[in-house]
Amino acid sequence: MAGFCFLDKEIMTESVKYLLDESRMPKSWYNLVADLPTPPPPVLHPGTLQPIGPDDLAPLFPRSLIQQEVSTEREIEIPEPVRDIYRQWRPTPLYRARRLEKALGTPARIYYKYEGVSPAGSHKPNTAVAQAFYNREAGIKRIATETGAGQWGSSLAFAGALFGIEVQVFMVRVSYQQKPYRRALMETYGARCVASPSEETACGRAILAQRPDHPGSLGIAISEAVEVAAQRDDTKYALGSVLNHVLLHQTVVGLESMAQLEMAGDYPDVIVACTGGGSNFAGIAFPFIGAQLRGGQRVRIVAIEPAACPTLTRGPYAYDFGDTAHLTPLTKMHTLGSTFTPPGFHAGGLRYHGMAPLVSHVKELGLIEARAYHQLSCFEAGVLFARVEGILPAPEANHAVKGAIDEALRCKEEGISRAILFNLCGHGHFDMQAYMDYFAGKLTDQSYDEAELAMALSGLPSVTAA
Amino acid sequence: MAGFCFLDKEIMTESVKYLLDESRMPKSWYNLVADLPTPPPPVLHPGTLQPIGPDDLAPLFPRSLIQQEVSTEREIEIPEPVRDIYRQWRPTPLYRARRLEKALGTPARIYYKYEGVSPAGSHKPNTAVAQAFYNREAGIKRIATETGAGQWGSSLAFAGALFGIEVQVFMVRVSYQQKPYRRALMETYGARCVASPSEETACGRAILAQRPDHPGSLGIAISEAVEVAAQRDDTKYALGSVLNHVLLHQTVVGLESMAQLEMAGDYPDVIVACTGGGSNFAGIAFPFIGAQLRGGQRVRIVAIEPAACPTLTRGPYAYDFGDTAHLTPLTKMHTLGSTFTPPGFHAGGLRYHGMAPLVSHVKELGLIEARAYHQLSCFEAGVLFARVEGILPAPEANHAVKGAIDEALRCKEEGISRAILFNLCGHGHFDMQAYMDYFAGKLTDQSYDEAELAMALSGLPSVTAA
Repeated sequence: MAGFCFLDKEIMTESVKYLLDESRMPKSWYNLVADLPTPPPPVLHPGTLQPIGPDDLAPLFPRSLIQQEVSTEREIEIPEPVRDIYRQWRPTPLYRARRLEKALGTPARIYYKYEGVSPAGSHKPNTAVAQAFYNREAGIKRIATETGAGQWGSSLAFAGALFGIEVQVFMVRVSYQQKPYRRALMETYGARCVASPSEETACGRAILAQRPDHPGSLGIAISEAVEVAAQRDDTKYALGSVLNHVLLHQTVVGLESMAQLEMAGDYPDVIVACTGGGSNFAGIAFPFIGAQLRGGQRVRIVAIEPAACPTLTRGPYAYDFGDTAHLTPLTKMHTLGSTFTPPGFHAGGLRYHGMAPLVSHVKELGLIEARAYHQLSCFEAGVLFARVEGILPAPEANHAVKGAIDEALRCKEEGISRAILFNLCGHGHFDMQAYMDYFAGKLTDQSYDEAELAMALSGLPSVTAA
Repeated sequence: MAGFCFLDKEIMTESVKYLLDESRMPKSWYNLVADLPTPPPPVLHPGTLQPIGPDDLAPLFPRSLIQQEVSTEREIEIPEPVRDIYRQWRPTPLYRARRLEKALGTPARIYYKYEGVSPAGSHKPNTAVAQAFYNREAGIKRIATETGAGQWGSSLAFAGALFGIEVQVFMVRVSYQQKPYRRALMETYGARCVASPSEETACGRAILAQRPDHPGSLGIAISEAVEVAAQRDDTKYALGSVLNHVLLHQTVVGLESMAQLEMAGDYPDVIVACTGGGSNFAGIAFPFIGAQLRGGQRVRIVAIEPAACPTLTRGPYAYDFGDTAHLTPLTKMHTLGSTFTPPGFHAGGLRYHGMAPLVSHVKELGLIEARAYHQLSCFEAGVLFARVEGILPAPEANHAVKGAIDEALRCKEEGISRAILFNLCGHGHFDMQAYMDYFAGKLTDQSYDEAELAMALSGLPSVTAA
């Protein structure tokens, strides 16, 4: 297949990217909680089932991040040293996907924000840099974390190198083996990367004792990192998604997009975002949800998740643990159960059993929709995208590409020109095995195991408080 | 090693990148030939040893590119459809490497242009898009080409997809085997990639008959692609470096850098560029050489090449073939001999036996210096760069990084603040095996074989004409 040919006069003289000057980079993150009609349910202590206080989180996070976790302020200032690092790749470009529109023959106006220009290749450094900064301010020497596909681990490794903080990454074993180059990237940044479950923690050893060839999961890797962080005063834990402060840091994506769409003289009718733990989704969507809640234009917002790990579309809204070993507090969220292990599909960043409490809450408030896709159609969309737009998306981002294409095709059917915005949250340069498997016909539309899901859900903690 | 920590007030409020608006993208390429005191020696027909004419090249290239190959016009307009595609990633950013300066403790002002933001990840699409465009204008359906590390092959695959041209890539066998993900990228763009030497050409079959496990070389892969192109009317050949028109297309890099340095209120004292075939070197350096020749400020220009393939520093300036099977015309250039096979070091893009005739000519004119580095010190420089600047350079680009660092350290010794400019011509996301080998201590400072070099040089054609 040789590709597409659709360069004509019509599209030649118009901008394809909207760039903001460094001086227009957001000075504050946006906190959606300030604009919500009802606050999200409290986080509970797993022993007492009472709302936790800042002290309960102090072993894991520096105070400044705990304050952000519970803040109800609308705007939280981005510290100058963080902005100074953001400056290297931010503001990121917003593209008008003119060649994709042409290939689809759609009247839709498709825009995509591109976070793959960050050094680590995804949106994750937006929070990694902030977290490393606050930890350094608190005198922390070491951060332990988990990673699935490796986007988060390499981002924190990058941030740690800049702030002189040692980073230890527990990488889900199956990814550790499948993605040696992601590991190499982390090591290039100076981080130490360990396959999880590992012999380095009590919880890792317990799991390996039961099943020496355990492929690992994000829930287990989180348990290991939390265990390491809880043991040492100079060591904290960092999470790449799910938590309020992480979602907060990602809002630079949506804030910049707003300014860039203004440059383009446009405003989105639909926002499409892939969601695993929720940070990419929140980053692009929350500023627009907030604007709507403050009386602004209504935007349809569609969360796209993998059919093999369908947290929002199949998981009940319930209190659950964030990790497998039950070391974390209980949060109310859409969850498949903390012991749920999704099949090994290729979007490792979307394989988390739960959904960010704040994303789950806005779903309950009816502010967003959710849709699940199987992976084959997502890769098909990603390959089309690469051939017309040039950028090769990460498997996670392919879910958003597929969602945007479906919305654009709907515009075509209905003969309506809508503005569609999505975040191309990362490139797929470290995910080429997935593309090779796709071309070789080795990928299938794996679904989760219904019995496994039922089992995991039956283990949900029974919470009567709150 | 946890990294560096050097974020202080001093560097926090200053720009780290200089971005040009799309409207300021160059409208013309710059042709150095117009400003040279003497023209480069003619290209000779290997049979008659007489200068070749446009008709001799017609089986391989469309007329428009042949015209550019011999043009003496200073400015050659960039066609609007080419600019329209450039627009997706051009103008590329120019960075001030403030964190690297700090890490080195140098008074030097280090700037780097970053071409890794292109869809294929290097500077190569600058010419790939132009070549695909001119071929499409000429009604060509198919382009055959060679690739070493894969940067060029994936760039032409990308360009072919956009213009609806079928692309067949002969990839040096050793790289084909070592870099399956580069191959996957080409296939994602819809190109067909074949290991060279292959059974698909007479010259490939002849080489395999002698040595079935031949690792391939750029010279052989060029022979195969040229053979395929010469056989069919609807098929042409494309080269990713060496030729005048390829160097011409790359001058957008230097032209943009000039405008961006003006934004920064600076001008380079030294330009450092890695060079294999010469297109990266020419892209960043030629516009500055031209400005100097027209009476502008003098700039020291340093070409960096690998010690294992030291064309400029060890190769005589002589007429030679561009390929191993001797299907190309003869060009006068610094060459190690067309049968020279360099050892398998990790900067595949720098493993060509010759140097662009135009780069060789400016070397003879005393307008540039050349220096050769072994690979270990280049990887060391690249890892330092990744840890402080965040971007992971391609092994080829590490040569420029090392050169720039050495110049910056010289500034420190001498206590002089000079402006140093280099082109970070590509990222290393598809070269992680090289970094893994480096960390594992598997890399050595391989030199070329002296006997092999002597043998290759003894085979230089004897040319008495011109």
